Amino acid sequence: MRATVLVRPKPGILDPQGEAVLGSLQQLGFAVDDARVGRVVDLELDEGDREQTRAELERMCEQLLANPLIESYEIELVEDA
Amino acid sequence: MRATVLVRPKPGILDPQGEAVLGSLQQLGFAVDDARVGRVVDLELDEGDREQTRAELERMCEQLLANPLIESYEIELVEDA
Repeated sequence: MRATVLVRPKPGILDPQGEAVLGSLQQLGFAVDDARVGRVVDLELDEGDREQTRAELERMCEQLLANPLIESYEIELVEDA
Repeated sequence: MRATVLVRPKPGILDPQGEAVLGSLQQLGFAVDDARVGRVVDLELDEGDREQTRAELERMCEQLLANPLIESYEIELVEDA
């Protein structure tokens, strides 16, 4: 089973990487009003119960993948074809 | 108009960050077989023609957001509600 976890800086939290990207894009002439940069983590997991796997992924996010104080996360489960 | 760009290391390309995440997750006792880490870039753009915006986003990826030699990118356009 594959999972994709998106980790983003929460609204209002300073995002220096996003500011740098925004500045560079504008300098290159692109019409961009805002940019925020986060992480995407693709995971390969053992096949298992969908709900259990989602709970496990939430624990991974809380413990390691995200900093829940300043980052939000979004979990997408992809069944293998 | 909002856009989400996912930038990932191409298959076969070394991903030290992914290896570190994989090792840490396994050490924490999680049953994970592989982990790859990339970036998610959320952009706020001026309202405009969908096809033109997508072409513009591809230029941003080629010029700044991704390194096309070692990274692949995926563009998702989100119409404002």
